[in-house]
Amino acid sequence: MKEECAVFGIFGSKEAAQMTYLGLYSLQHRGQESSGIISYDGKKMYEHKAMGLVSKVYSDDILKELEGHVAIGHNRYSTTGISHVVNTQPFLVDCRFGKIAVAHNGNLVNAVELRTRMEDDGSIFRSTMDSEVLLHLIARSREDSIEKMVIDALGQVKGAYSLLFLTQGKIIAARDPNGFRPLCLGKLGNTHIIASESCAFDIIGAAYLREVEPGEMIVLSEDGIKSIKFAASAERLSKCIFEFIYFSRPDSKVFGENVDKVRRKLGRKLAEEHPADADIVISVPDSSNTIALGFAEASGLPFELGLIRNHYVGRTFIQPKQRERDWDVRIKFNPVKGVLRGKRIVVIDDSIVRGSTMRKLVTLIREAGAAEVHLRIGSPPITHSCYYGIDTPTRSELIASKKSVREIEKYLGVESLHYLSVKGLLECVDDPDNYCITCFNGVYPIQRDGDYSKDVFDQDIKDKSGRRAERNSA
Amino acid sequence: MKEECAVFGIFGSKEAAQMTYLGLYSLQHRGQESSGIISYDGKKMYEHKAMGLVSKVYSDDILKELEGHVAIGHNRYSTTGISHVVNTQPFLVDCRFGKIAVAHNGNLVNAVELRTRMEDDGSIFRSTMDSEVLLHLIARSREDSIEKMVIDALGQVKGAYSLLFLTQGKIIAARDPNGFRPLCLGKLGNTHIIASESCAFDIIGAAYLREVEPGEMIVLSEDGIKSIKFAASAERLSKCIFEFIYFSRPDSKVFGENVDKVRRKLGRKLAEEHPADADIVISVPDSSNTIALGFAEASGLPFELGLIRNHYVGRTFIQPKQRERDWDVRIKFNPVKGVLRGKRIVVIDDSIVRGSTMRKLVTLIREAGAAEVHLRIGSPPITHSCYYGIDTPTRSELIASKKSVREIEKYLGVESLHYLSVKGLLECVDDPDNYCITCFNGVYPIQRDGDYSKDVFDQDIKDKSGRRAERNSA
Amino acid sequence: MKEECAVFGIFGSKEAAQMTYLGLYSLQHRGQESSGIISYDGKKMYEHKAMGLVSKVYSDDILKELEGHVAIGHNRYSTTGISHVVNTQPFLVDCRFGKIAVAHNGNLVNAVELRTRMEDDGSIFRSTMDSEVLLHLIARSREDSIEKMVIDALGQVKGAYSLLFLTQGKIIAARDPNGFRPLCLGKLGNTHIIASESCAFDIIGAAYLREVEPGEMIVLSEDGIKSIKFAASAERLSKCIFEFIYFSRPDSKVFGENVDKVRRKLGRKLAEEHPADADIVISVPDSSNTIALGFAEASGLPFELGLIRNHYVGRTFIQPKQRERDWDVRIKFNPVKGVLRGKRIVVIDDSIVRGSTMRKLVTLIREAGAAEVHLRIGSPPITHSCYYGIDTPTRSELIASKKSVREIEKYLGVESLHYLSVKGLLECVDDPDNYCITCFNGVYPIQRDGDYSKDVFDQDIKDKSGRRAERNSA
Amino acid sequence: MKEECAVFGIFGSKEAAQMTYLGLYSLQHRGQESSGIISYDGKKMYEHKAMGLVSKVYSDDILKELEGHVAIGHNRYSTTGISHVVNTQPFLVDCRFGKIAVAHNGNLVNAVELRTRMEDDGSIFRSTMDSEVLLHLIARSREDSIEKMVIDALGQVKGAYSLLFLTQGKIIAARDPNGFRPLCLGKLGNTHIIASESCAFDIIGAAYLREVEPGEMIVLSEDGIKSIKFAASAERLSKCIFEFIYFSRPDSKVFGENVDKVRRKLGRKLAEEHPADADIVISVPDSSNTIALGFAEASGLPFELGLIRNHYVGRTFIQPKQRERDWDVRIKFNPVKGVLRGKRIVVIDDSIVRGSTMRKLVTLIREAGAAEVHLRIGSPPITHSCYYGIDTPTRSELIASKKSVREIEKYLGVESLHYLSVKGLLECVDDPDNYCITCFNGVYPIQRDGDYSKDVFDQDIKDKSGRRAERNSA
Repeated sequence: MKEECAVFGIFGSKEAAQMTYLGLYSLQHRGQESSGIISYDGKKMYEHKAMGLVSKVYSDDILKELEGHVAIGHNRYSTTGISHVVNTQPFLVDCRFGKIAVAHNGNLVNAVELRTRMEDDGSIFRSTMDSEVLLHLIARSREDSIEKMVIDALGQVKGAYSLLFLTQGKIIAARDPNGFRPLCLGKLGNTHIIASESCAFDIIGAAYLREVEPGEMIVLSEDGIKSIKFAASAERLSKCIFEFIYFSRPDSKVFGENVDKVRRKLGRKLAEEHPADADIVISVPDSSNTIALGFAEASGLPFELGLIRNHYVGRTFIQPKQRERDWDVRIKFNPVKGVLRGKRIVVIDDSIVRGSTMRKLVTLIREAGAAEVHLRIGSPPITHSCYYGIDTPTRSELIASKKSVREIEKYLGVESLHYLSVKGLLECVDDPDNYCITCFNGVYPIQRDGDYSKDVFDQDIKDKSGRRAERNSA
Repeated sequence: MKEECAVFGIFGSKEAAQMTYLGLYSLQHRGQESSGIISYDGKKMYEHKAMGLVSKVYSDDILKELEGHVAIGHNRYSTTGISHVVNTQPFLVDCRFGKIAVAHNGNLVNAVELRTRMEDDGSIFRSTMDSEVLLHLIARSREDSIEKMVIDALGQVKGAYSLLFLTQGKIIAARDPNGFRPLCLGKLGNTHIIASESCAFDIIGAAYLREVEPGEMIVLSEDGIKSIKFAASAERLSKCIFEFIYFSRPDSKVFGENVDKVRRKLGRKLAEEHPADADIVISVPDSSNTIALGFAEASGLPFELGLIRNHYVGRTFIQPKQRERDWDVRIKFNPVKGVLRGKRIVVIDDSIVRGSTMRKLVTLIREAGAAEVHLRIGSPPITHSCYYGIDTPTRSELIASKKSVREIEKYLGVESLHYLSVKGLLECVDDPDNYCITCFNGVYPIQRDGDYSKDVFDQDIKDKSGRRAERNSA
Repeated sequence: MKEECAVFGIFGSKEAAQMTYLGLYSLQHRGQESSGIISYDGKKMYEHKAMGLVSKVYSDDILKELEGHVAIGHNRYSTTGISHVVNTQPFLVDCRFGKIAVAHNGNLVNAVELRTRMEDDGSIFRSTMDSEVLLHLIARSREDSIEKMVIDALGQVKGAYSLLFLTQGKIIAARDPNGFRPLCLGKLGNTHIIASESCAFDIIGAAYLREVEPGEMIVLSEDGIKSIKFAASAERLSKCIFEFIYFSRPDSKVFGENVDKVRRKLGRKLAEEHPADADIVISVPDSSNTIALGFAEASGLPFELGLIRNHYVGRTFIQPKQRERDWDVRIKFNPVKGVLRGKRIVVIDDSIVRGSTMRKLVTLIREAGAAEVHLRIGSPPITHSCYYGIDTPTRSELIASKKSVREIEKYLGVESLHYLSVKGLLECVDDPDNYCITCFNGVYPIQRDGDYSKDVFDQDIKDKSGRRAERNSA
Repeated sequence: MKEECAVFGIFGSKEAAQMTYLGLYSLQHRGQESSGIISYDGKKMYEHKAMGLVSKVYSDDILKELEGHVAIGHNRYSTTGISHVVNTQPFLVDCRFGKIAVAHNGNLVNAVELRTRMEDDGSIFRSTMDSEVLLHLIARSREDSIEKMVIDALGQVKGAYSLLFLTQGKIIAARDPNGFRPLCLGKLGNTHIIASESCAFDIIGAAYLREVEPGEMIVLSEDGIKSIKFAASAERLSKCIFEFIYFSRPDSKVFGENVDKVRRKLGRKLAEEHPADADIVISVPDSSNTIALGFAEASGLPFELGLIRNHYVGRTFIQPKQRERDWDVRIKFNPVKGVLRGKRIVVIDDSIVRGSTMRKLVTLIREAGAAEVHLRIGSPPITHSCYYGIDTPTRSELIASKKSVREIEKYLGVESLHYLSVKGLLECVDDPDNYCITCFNGVYPIQRDGDYSKDVFDQDIKDKSGRRAERNSA
């Protein structure tokens, strides 16, 4: 499971691009495939986007060329393929009122329908991103102010979106009425910043003010900050609970709560629900560390560093020809024999997606001499795909959609396997009724308009009605 | 003066992308800033575009990923700037009938008007290329076949275009009714090829069949080749005479004539009009070599290699701090003292644009010991900018728009300077009435809809009416 | 403080270069500036070396070109400068008996003397590495076997060395009689491996056999493995205790002990010696994690994740112009406010070198709301530079050589600061008398032949006697 | 046939590295595989070397780091292979009197013997270049001044060398007593320059003074310029006549003669010896242009541009899978049909080595419609390999060593083939007795000490006597 994006925007800084660079650096965990910044100096927009990590994408010269006091930025985990460059963000286009750029975190569930309708109406699309759909809707709006045009467009889309627009000398931020993805507001002197997580404020020394509310639009301009309620919040919000389980950085505040605190509770709750008769607790680093600490605390078992993560692992790893060993897992995780040998071990992970990596990891831990392996997962079994901005495998690839917990336990080869219950999970957050738990229970808060595959727009073939012929069987 | 583009398309080859690569290699002189290929395998399109020369843009792996039996390609001389990547071609988009890609050589004179109208109507533009305008027009057409849609679109545009579209499993080629830019048809077995110049056929061993006629559309598909006359040819064509003077490769056939033959005639005619009392004839290599040979032949003076061009010169050249010397010209041209010393020299160049390089060159030739320098130019004085696909400086930068021939002679510091006359120029081609000589006489065959600067679409500011505020003073 | 090298050698593997690549991957922490592999196929040697991380230096194609069943490899932390490429290892030369390559971890203290003597005798040096001195000594030896020649050479050098030679179809490993740096022997089927740390065996599935003994030479060849005692072990060994404090990977076995176990003891001992009246224990990740766990265990205080390390930080970081904030530390460490706020915190670090980073870190922790900061260091104050293979700053840059503990406490701005005592440190290892603790007590087990600066060989100037004029004042 | 090197040195320029860069740029034709500059600022030497063309190897930042008022540079055509980087020049080492760097054009014929002897004596070699042998000899010399040490070393080597040393604050240039390779002296104000060809003076505006004489050493230092006759010139010199035929730039003066003038004579002489009953004369561009002009002049036949060279051809060219066509030649040369069709053509080339490229070219010319092809070669048949600094194929690959002229004529498929006679060739230069014509007559002015193959030092195997076992059969 991979988060698909991070957004960052800043209005009124002498070093807007530089600050955006720092913010994107701190939000790197939300997207590592590409990064981009668009800045504005009152006259012109400046654009730089490229594939790769923030530390590679930008140089001193490039930041200097991104002039101006306003900037928005984006990190992306994009789909692979030969045409990926066109899918980097922020996405900048020209329309009747001038230039407009968008940075998007989330996923629209009616993008195919809207796009097909606009294509039928004569529009052309350059990318396969639903952010482009948004720009079309705005450009087509007949409203007389940019704020109204954006509201007009947002009124037509369904799904998850935490958005930043840069246009008309303004940054316009908006969050969907369900509040799927986080978006928060910060301040540094007179400068306002909007970012996916509060850790982006910390790096530049800005203070966290509050969340952008579901259904709220915030406009940053020379006139200061303005808040517009463009839609009523959903009766029950759909905040992504996975932000606490895995995605967000532990030092961030998202949805108004400290990630670290919630993650700690997950571990404690897990220990309460599923204690283990074991000697030590270890985590699958780094994401599960806090959950493991919580488990150790509640269970009274000692927390140990039984797996060390190799942080020098690059993008490419050259596999030996003899493929029988699990090189990819071995290069990434180093089991500490001195810690593991002869011990009954509780292994804590945040979640299990396909199960294949965990299976290899269990083998490694056993080879290092573990007497027993008791696996405890800090979230319930993932049985359904996400349509709201997370890159989940198709349902058939999710191990928990095909196997029972006992079958998974057997497949992984562990002495015991237990997941945190949905009930337990929700008890760890302040307002349990306002979270999306679709991936655990299959209840989708907003329906999609058809079961399209991820690469629907990469196909060239359409049927007679102009609709794309490629469609997954329901 | 720089040609802005080369196009190449091939239908029905086992190695379509590879053949396109070879074709683009041979058309490198028409555009060196970026190159791109889009291929089609009956199901999907594959895209690769990048900044740089053909020899750098493609690799064996990249060509292998460009699968299929159909491909179009493009070389571009693009404008500089931070956003240049979006302006590479072929330009591929998605619209109501699926994917469509375009490769364009030429320039539309009503692109701003069309674009503004479509923007007003809600369209968004990603690039600043007028090729994108064409795709919008096609996507908006209500016609029921792709051929009719393209014709519908072409009916709305004015200007110069030699176009290749790849869509619906077809390559559609079209040339404007004035025939500004060349486009020709070739054949290799059952495979048809369309390219800017015939040299692209030679490299892959294909035979030259004929020009694509002004106002003609050619459709290549599984059904073979089909010709459609989508518009009447202009009464008087506007074929670009500069293709013979400078742009095209001497081994090419363009507009049905051998470039080399015409270029030779230019030299002979120049000698007839403006003989020189001199010892030897030298050319500014390589483009003026053939003209110089013609001059030498007609004048009876010996042709010598007085300037050697350094072909190892790369894109970047590190200037010494002491800037008084003309390093850029010196690194590029090596005067052969043994040839030049003590001689009265006729120097042949194809044209003079700003005059600054020629001035430095004359200094070099004098330093090498030339007794006299008689400059003869194989074309008339360039006094007007081109709007039909050539990157000309603005009028005020053209030396001949500001100075008389005698003033230029003095500025360059030569004993004598003579240009070929317009009359003489036209006598060198078969159908003199059908050529565009705008750059020499200022008579524009098709008017532009406003005097927009080159970077009109890079500006962010529009006036209240939604029109771009930036406009050059007429 | 930076370790200067890692070595890896394998004899008799079908994929010798590939295995070496994996070994070097796992030893990346010992040197990140350059990496190299030299392989041998029974006829020829193949070489690849480059600046950068293992994940960047090698590609699939490069590994394929490194043919053969024998290979040695090296990671290096090299000095900077324009000529650094010549200082990559393994270093391969040609001499009277053919080709010989060396990979070296350590530092010779009489290299300048030996080199000067050989230069006087007519030798030339290409690099500034003392490994080159070794090769000269071997090439000059009049012995009649390669083993004896190496022994002859080793008899002349003083200092720290864990060496691998590849020559004459053999790998020859040797460790100095003091045993400064680790070197161990592993086995995978019939294949022997020698590496700096045992973690390199784990990654390829090899078993740890034993340490290469101080004064021992091991020869790997087609005839199997042979051990030669080339020198008596020192009466008291000088094993580098910093391998346990910081350098080695926690999952490695070095000097026959599990790094993790010793590191844990450091933490417990530190808690015994210097308990703190505090609420929580945090570590400066990742190197101090195990020490912190030990401290937490012994003190009964909870271990918390109060600082998160950003593992996406690249080599280059673009500093904002407003330099007042400690950007470099902020981009690397994220304090978790939820954990730190209002707490009295024990911060555990392995050591303090200059103190400047720790000072910034304390500021960060305070800004995050810490009520009190009690700093506990898992080793004694570093007061002296290392000459045995560790890149230490000059003495004057070591904060503990200039300031008392109380002064450092004040400089860092912490409520309390305590270091582990030398006595306590030595109680954590099995054979305390056999460790080098020079950096803590200034007692050098082997004297240097002059106080040369690090870049002594980069200077061009020599005095009349042929000796280099540049010499640090004692 | 490829020249192996260019050298350039400058003493006393504010921008020494920059001037060297310009000089190397103009000498690029003598070596395109790697380039390097070493500069000196009175205290330190600075080094930069890399594989690739001058335009790629250097950047503005790199030139800035090459500080100082003294610099030497080198372009190299090196042998291929994985270890090529060690063979770049200038080669910089450290020895008893400090640092010394060498740049070498030529080839020593007793390098193997000298190297073997020194290896036996305990020396080690890092590269496979015979320049390294020279540095060893200098470092071993017991003389008391650097000049004498260099003379001592030169006294021991045999073969071709035009050398530049940078050491002891001096540039020392030397040319072998036979004068195989060119080396000349120039001046710009008070600054002296030494370079392989005079074209390197022209680019920086320096004046050509004279040749460095065979057996002469020139020393440039703060004391000015000093000439030392270190050896008597050979009774008959062995100046490489191929410098006139092919290697040197036409605008250069080498061996005191204008290259262009000699090359012109070759063409005239060729026409006298072997006239052709034909319509036009064309050259294989660019190297044969001047010869062709000479032929045209003397024969009265018109010179035409029948082949256009594609100067955009990069290092790598992706071959189509259908290999039946001669893609490599086709991408490089464009036959101009308009010129060639129906004509009886004299094709002029400077020389024939293997004959394979010429054979493909003849096919191309015929396909373009040539009625007859009469091939005239501006030099005699090459029957022997060069040991004096030119990369010639082994004798068995030279077509003229295996086939008679009539057989070659048949193999190439031309109506007639004639070579310039040795006698005719020598009549084109001023002092015909002082040229090396070994490649045409097999008389070697200096014998080699054994028939070693080019990659003798790449082999790992030596026989018992310490001599390399690999030796070509005589």
